Amino acid sequence: MIKHILFDIDDTLFPSTEFSSLARKNALNAMISMGLDHPYPELESSLEAIIKKKGSNYPGHFDDLCKALGIKDSGKYIASAVAAYHDTKTSIAPFPKVPLTLLKLKEKGYHLHIATQGSSIKQWDKLIRLRIALYFDRVFVSEEMNEDKSAGFYKKILAALQSSPQECMMVGDREDSDILPAKDAGFKTVRILSGKYATTPTKAEFVIKDIDGLIAVLNEL
Amino acid sequence: MIKHILFDIDDTLFPSTEFSSLARKNALNAMISMGLDHPYPELESSLEAIIKKKGSNYPGHFDDLCKALGIKDSGKYIASAVAAYHDTKTSIAPFPKVPLTLLKLKEKGYHLHIATQGSSIKQWDKLIRLRIALYFDRVFVSEEMNEDKSAGFYKKILAALQSSPQECMMVGDREDSDILPAKDAGFKTVRILSGKYATTPTKAEFVIKDIDGLIAVLNEL
Repeated sequence: MIKHILFDIDDTLFPSTEFSSLARKNALNAMISMGLDHPYPELESSLEAIIKKKGSNYPGHFDDLCKALGIKDSGKYIASAVAAYHDTKTSIAPFPKVPLTLLKLKEKGYHLHIATQGSSIKQWDKLIRLRIALYFDRVFVSEEMNEDKSAGFYKKILAALQSSPQECMMVGDREDSDILPAKDAGFKTVRILSGKYATTPTKAEFVIKDIDGLIAVLNEL
Repeated sequence: MIKHILFDIDDTLFPSTEFSSLARKNALNAMISMGLDHPYPELESSLEAIIKKKGSNYPGHFDDLCKALGIKDSGKYIASAVAAYHDTKTSIAPFPKVPLTLLKLKEKGYHLHIATQGSSIKQWDKLIRLRIALYFDRVFVSEEMNEDKSAGFYKKILAALQSSPQECMMVGDREDSDILPAKDAGFKTVRILSGKYATTPTKAEFVIKDIDGLIAVLNEL
């Protein structure tokens, strides 16, 4: 009998990969709007190289981009890129069926929680921007748990919820961090086919294409 | 014959003091919306004490607030406060007559520039958010000039513009950083009566209440 349903955030509750790509595109276009005389493809390939080298969480992407391309008086270009980037990141929206499905699950009496990798403030910010933060009883973030999404991470969640694995279900898009370690910890697992990992094979008990598929999965159990 | 007109940003081109106060209010209300069970006046007085102690540019106001009030699981409250604060700060708008007046001055052939105190990226961000960045030929920020708004700052501007003081006018709301040092450097000065310094006495050659008063000042010269 499932009591607790845990959700990943990125590419499970909203199209994270798409928004990141759009945010970068909007940022580069904003630099050009501000008067930067550089062809877009050159800006794009330089930015990609910087992100590849420094990681996507590095805060100085656009500073480095201006340095790499020898752009002078870069303040206005960096500021316009960062503003456009943040505007895109703050206008994220959930996958269309997410809010109503979460509400239905609450009505059915399930306890909903988040199990996510990353920094606490950044992951909370996403829930707030998605306007779904209040649906969740507990939000488990790897940074606060001092553990990446491993079997140990999921076992700590069981302890925090004072629950048994038979009562817990994990829903996510990634085999490596959502499905396999949760399964190791005894959770029921549901793989959602979205984002850049949509086509990797799965060992999850259930596979859904859209989050509203969860309702049928739970009825089946 | 005036050729160059320099503008301060905060409380000259937009109501900076009002927006800062609104941003803090919205941030505290967002914490309460997220479920924080603390009376607003207590949150407000604690935040004011932190801002007074650490300065308004300190980035950890809401982290400190949660610590000071012993708030646990603070991630969601900090994230919601910061999101609401940033949303307010990114929705700043110029004083109503600013865009049209700037456009008229451009039509009359004046070169418009910014002379502002602060960090380059933050001040550029304001111009971008205000949708007026493209009006200005040059943006002089104290951080980049390695000098606070002193007579030396304004003399460096003269050198950068390759201009004489007789050709330059400074418009701002603050006697200490906009009017007196610019006057020392030989600029014509225009004091605009807005923001928290609106009532301090002035030695400026001209005093205006609204920015469109500049048109009459320039016709008079």
